[in-house]
Amino acid sequence: MTNNDNILALASPSGIGAISLIRLSGPESISIVNKIFKGSEKVKLVDQMANKVQLGYLVDKDSVIDKVLVTVFKNPKSYTGEDLVEISCHGSTFIQEAIIQLLLKFDCRVAKPGEFTMRSFLNGKMDLSQAESVADLISSDSEASHRLAINQMRGGFKNDINELRMELLNFASLIELELDFSQEDVEFANYSELNKLLNKIELNLKNLIDSFKTGNAIKNGIPIAIVGEPNSGKSTLLNTLLNEDRAIVSPIAGTTRDTVEDQINISGVVCRFIDTAGIRSTDDEIENIGIDRTFKKMEESQIIIFLIDKSDLNEHKIEYYKKYLNEIIEKFPTTKLITVLNKNDIVNSFSASDLKEFNTIEISAKENVNVDLLKNEILLYINNLTSEINNSIISNSRHYDLLNKTLEEIHKVKNSIGNKISSDLLAIDIKQAIYFLGELTGEISNDEILGNIFSKFCIGK
Amino acid sequence: MTNNDNILALASPSGIGAISLIRLSGPESISIVNKIFKGSEKVKLVDQMANKVQLGYLVDKDSVIDKVLVTVFKNPKSYTGEDLVEISCHGSTFIQEAIIQLLLKFDCRVAKPGEFTMRSFLNGKMDLSQAESVADLISSDSEASHRLAINQMRGGFKNDINELRMELLNFASLIELELDFSQEDVEFANYSELNKLLNKIELNLKNLIDSFKTGNAIKNGIPIAIVGEPNSGKSTLLNTLLNEDRAIVSPIAGTTRDTVEDQINISGVVCRFIDTAGIRSTDDEIENIGIDRTFKKMEESQIIIFLIDKSDLNEHKIEYYKKYLNEIIEKFPTTKLITVLNKNDIVNSFSASDLKEFNTIEISAKENVNVDLLKNEILLYINNLTSEINNSIISNSRHYDLLNKTLEEIHKVKNSIGNKISSDLLAIDIKQAIYFLGELTGEISNDEILGNIFSKFCIGK
Repeated sequence: MTNNDNILALASPSGIGAISLIRLSGPESISIVNKIFKGSEKVKLVDQMANKVQLGYLVDKDSVIDKVLVTVFKNPKSYTGEDLVEISCHGSTFIQEAIIQLLLKFDCRVAKPGEFTMRSFLNGKMDLSQAESVADLISSDSEASHRLAINQMRGGFKNDINELRMELLNFASLIELELDFSQEDVEFANYSELNKLLNKIELNLKNLIDSFKTGNAIKNGIPIAIVGEPNSGKSTLLNTLLNEDRAIVSPIAGTTRDTVEDQINISGVVCRFIDTAGIRSTDDEIENIGIDRTFKKMEESQIIIFLIDKSDLNEHKIEYYKKYLNEIIEKFPTTKLITVLNKNDIVNSFSASDLKEFNTIEISAKENVNVDLLKNEILLYINNLTSEINNSIISNSRHYDLLNKTLEEIHKVKNSIGNKISSDLLAIDIKQAIYFLGELTGEISNDEILGNIFSKFCIGK
Repeated sequence: MTNNDNILALASPSGIGAISLIRLSGPESISIVNKIFKGSEKVKLVDQMANKVQLGYLVDKDSVIDKVLVTVFKNPKSYTGEDLVEISCHGSTFIQEAIIQLLLKFDCRVAKPGEFTMRSFLNGKMDLSQAESVADLISSDSEASHRLAINQMRGGFKNDINELRMELLNFASLIELELDFSQEDVEFANYSELNKLLNKIELNLKNLIDSFKTGNAIKNGIPIAIVGEPNSGKSTLLNTLLNEDRAIVSPIAGTTRDTVEDQINISGVVCRFIDTAGIRSTDDEIENIGIDRTFKKMEESQIIIFLIDKSDLNEHKIEYYKKYLNEIIEKFPTTKLITVLNKNDIVNSFSASDLKEFNTIEISAKENVNVDLLKNEILLYINNLTSEINNSIISNSRHYDLLNKTLEEIHKVKNSIGNKISSDLLAIDIKQAIYFLGELTGEISNDEILGNIFSKFCIGK
């Protein structure tokens, strides 16, 4: 993990703008920029106060590349913890490239993705879960995902993890003590106390692991499946929902968001619609629906919108739908099911009241009638979800994996105690659990782990 | 021209990146940001030293929006000449918008395009032609256009114009003096001296006006027409030229340039290929070629590549081409003509030597044989052009128009002197010439002129 060279990158988004930002970090970063900087003040960059901005020109031999602002940050008080220089130049792609090419003639290289943040971690400016939150923060595209990332950046569940780890370390040291005195048959570790502790740890781990469902939905969007027969109006409903969202345009020019197909933002949370094959009613197939591809999609969803065509309702169909809906409820008890009768402008002796046990809503997707009622149902679910946002929510699949691995080790320890396994074997499992938690916070790390984490960052961060 | 409110805009390119920059300018800009900034240092933003960076959090009531760096610049030492604050935040589109929305709750509004630079001009930080060069600098996409813009930003032809203007002012005051003493029949203005001066001014104006052709080609790209009969290989040649250019990829990730269809960069200058309808040889039509649409396109071009299919050569065709080429030379004497015989892999008893008076190059566009020779010919033209880049080149069509208008007035003055027109009428024309030069540098300006100029800027600049 070489950490002594000088790295540089374009830090602002690529493309043309009023201003672009290029930054360099490393022990020679200030003296490198000093070589090409003709400042408006008498003080040279290398002698300049930290955190100070100076106006001047960047020059390549005699030719002026740009009029720039240069800010100097000094080790350890910088983002990376190293000496760091920020160059604020005119936002032409030509200038961006010319400056970077000029700097590369000196002793520096283009930074790898996330390398600034990796140095920040390696220099103890933040722990690993905080560093990971930086990438989440940059890619956050909704209020809720932003709040989640900010929470994590400011500490997040780190305290929970550290507490768990401290308790395990304490536990481990007692057992080691016992091993040291094993000839004397002394019991330092009170095994009933330890069992209590393990139960508590197990519960904490489970809570964190369970929070991943919420965290992941907030980070990546709530998966919603719209299920229905052909012609029940699935795509009309989707278009109505999407169009309403698209119509809300940002008042700020130049910051138009990339609109993603099939996503809407409800109350600060992204809802992601999942394409389903739909269902098709045939008498003898109801038993087979469990193997339907649509069922697979429902399994991935957190909300299922079950869409029924009102014009199509008859006694037979009502029976069919009831069976189907009950099967969904049985199979996915924790998934929110919203039953919707579409085309409510059509006169039919059958109506939502015939499916009232499912709290069926009557709408017209085409005429945008009562679609708000449907959105309210989604909103209820979302409000429930966002009220859960606190410091003990995880949203990172690496954390999820490590917490699951830790839990597995805790289970082994509990079994070992139950089976009166010798203390030395017990100690191995506990140490393994401690190791996994250390990987999570970054107290234990290696090139491979860090490489994996930071390669997902954008360049310049 | 209201100049007392607070404006803000995203200054870095829109989109996602490591860091984004938001800036505010105006008398309350510092106190506005101060309201939502919780700094890491004890000193408040409003009490902070100028040109200093402070780390902290932007907060909306209790919720943290982002961890940011805030830099304070103080009137008059800022880009706009007003108090100015730069906020460097994480480059998520959500955060960009959240910060701007939060700031808009206070006494500020979103800046219009170029409004920061307009304030810079209005507050005397730069003259109008310098302000205009800022937009050119940002949109410059080649070394030559960048050099042109930098020259202009650093003063450019301003001195030439100011000198012309001073001389005209001097001239005008002498004539006015004469008018004051007109009863006494005194001649203050030595008319032969004045004629010399007018000739000198005329020459200077003409030089600047003539430089527009070069300036415009450097700024907007050299227009090149590829002319030839169907199947002579026009599009194959174009593709060969374009593909070679595209293959040169920037070494810096994240700064990939937008490639524009039909443009290549040769030696730091953009060459823009113009689509032509092509020519078609028919015996009796040569006299009519002058009205050909292709001739219109040749008129717009600075280089004409005349492409001939070698396999198609015969005595009759050679005669036809000779006539055609001579007509081009006659019609466009200042346009560079490059005659190219394509498909040189084909055996034919006729060859380039049959058109040697046109310095014909033999190539194979398909096999990329000798295409370098063609590029060298273009390069010669370009080197000639870029050697002309100095402070007396104009590239802005507004300047071009005003210089032409000034020249027209100078012609009127010369005619008036020749025709012994009375001094008071002379004075009117001179004042008009002085007015036009004042519009050019911005000494004379109004809302409409400024509105036109700055509306072409990007937001945030």
